[in-house]
Amino acid sequence: MRIACAQLKPTIGDVHANVEDASDAIADAAREGASLVVLPELTTTGYVFESREEALALGEAVPDGPASTRFLELARGLEIYVVVGMNENDRGRLFNTSAVFGPTGFIGRFRKVHLWDRENLWFQPGDLGFPVFETPIGRIATFVCYDGWFPESYRACVLAGADMVCIPTNWVPIPGQDPTEPAMATYLCMASAHVNGVVVAAADRVGVERGQEFIGQSVIVNYTGWPIAGPASREKTQMLFADINLEAARRARTWNAFNDPVRDRRPESYTPMGRGPS
Amino acid sequence: MRIACAQLKPTIGDVHANVEDASDAIADAAREGASLVVLPELTTTGYVFESREEALALGEAVPDGPASTRFLELARGLEIYVVVGMNENDRGRLFNTSAVFGPTGFIGRFRKVHLWDRENLWFQPGDLGFPVFETPIGRIATFVCYDGWFPESYRACVLAGADMVCIPTNWVPIPGQDPTEPAMATYLCMASAHVNGVVVAAADRVGVERGQEFIGQSVIVNYTGWPIAGPASREKTQMLFADINLEAARRARTWNAFNDPVRDRRPESYTPMGRGPS
Repeated sequence: MRIACAQLKPTIGDVHANVEDASDAIADAAREGASLVVLPELTTTGYVFESREEALALGEAVPDGPASTRFLELARGLEIYVVVGMNENDRGRLFNTSAVFGPTGFIGRFRKVHLWDRENLWFQPGDLGFPVFETPIGRIATFVCYDGWFPESYRACVLAGADMVCIPTNWVPIPGQDPTEPAMATYLCMASAHVNGVVVAAADRVGVERGQEFIGQSVIVNYTGWPIAGPASREKTQMLFADINLEAARRARTWNAFNDPVRDRRPESYTPMGRGPS
Repeated sequence: MRIACAQLKPTIGDVHANVEDASDAIADAAREGASLVVLPELTTTGYVFESREEALALGEAVPDGPASTRFLELARGLEIYVVVGMNENDRGRLFNTSAVFGPTGFIGRFRKVHLWDRENLWFQPGDLGFPVFETPIGRIATFVCYDGWFPESYRACVLAGADMVCIPTNWVPIPGQDPTEPAMATYLCMASAHVNGVVVAAADRVGVERGQEFIGQSVIVNYTGWPIAGPASREKTQMLFADINLEAARRARTWNAFNDPVRDRRPESYTPMGRGPS
């Protein structure tokens, strides 16, 4: 099965142009045989809102708003799953949402659980946990950007059966990071894919928006922990494709006669213990 | 504060020689001004036991056995903290233990929670959780090798206040890993240090023992996630030194006005959710 990540460059506030770009990327992915494509966080609106009023005005209902309607048409017509970051306006409550559309219609949504920095000024913290969507192409989980800094996010998905974690993201530079080095975000994806035996597909954006730089480097990581597409460019829009085998992924989680890195968890041992000598 | 990792090459069954090598490494670390030195997993006995009988015969009491006594003398005499992997024989029960000795005496022990492969044939799973030891040089946590594949291990330590995670380890090659690439273990240490804002010091062994290769590449990772010493050689014994600042580490965990990557956890969201459309 082929999957794709579309690294895009949304323009703040220009929903029409952003949805057009996203639609082109979805069509490109389908043309190349992808069964699923991941698009960046807040693909439809851009990221750097100036006020809650602006964020509210740009949000729309999911899946009843116009951008969702367009993505639904494309997913149906092209028989492709689309995982896309959207500013969801749920009757005045805003969520930083990853929506999943498929050939059969709206599959479901995730609402970003861990809000980054000024997102706290306009978005509500996600209230749907970490859902996993059972589909004919596999069990799909999705979360957004900073959620990937929490190993708990991956574990919640994998313990609910996820084969694949799709991450719409808007990664920003980390202070002190050498820009010529790989991004720490890449290593987080690799480490998490490896210890969970799960495919990770992260679609980032590029460009500078109201002074905020984004770092691209979208990546598709196999269940072994090693990238199979990307990291993509730091500056340019780009499509990544990778062929994955989710049956192999499920089998490969048995590492030897004794070990499966998910089943080997011992939750009773994770309660913080005392700090004194023992 | 300076810390050290001693990458050693123990010989299976030769406890005398192994304790001598370890003692030399501790003395070297102290001479170079280290306040703490980490030594590999099962430093005193080697790793590849052939039978439970052999493992039992080589184990010794902690902290009352002869190797512990030696390490205690060194820690006291040289005023250095020693974190060392030992085969602990607790009245017939064997544990893959990381023991902590300090200038004031025996500080405490961790018993490997997640047993790797044939370790299950002779060791008991650790029964002490993830203790954190409050010392004048900082709050020290320690776990062993495969424990580092579980993000829960790091979280348990950090939620109990750890400033530093010391990892005696015996990393083996991962199937399919290109030996010219950095080890996945390095990325696990980096990712875990980064998302937890904690210093990670992993002391590995080298050499081939009864056909089992070990991969060296000991590393000291700063609380930012970036290595500050190593990765060391794949084949040779080596000492790593790094100067760390645990006050800076505690301060640096506040990433901006809204975010601290440990406090931002939302445990109520991590319960696995349903798999259907929502």
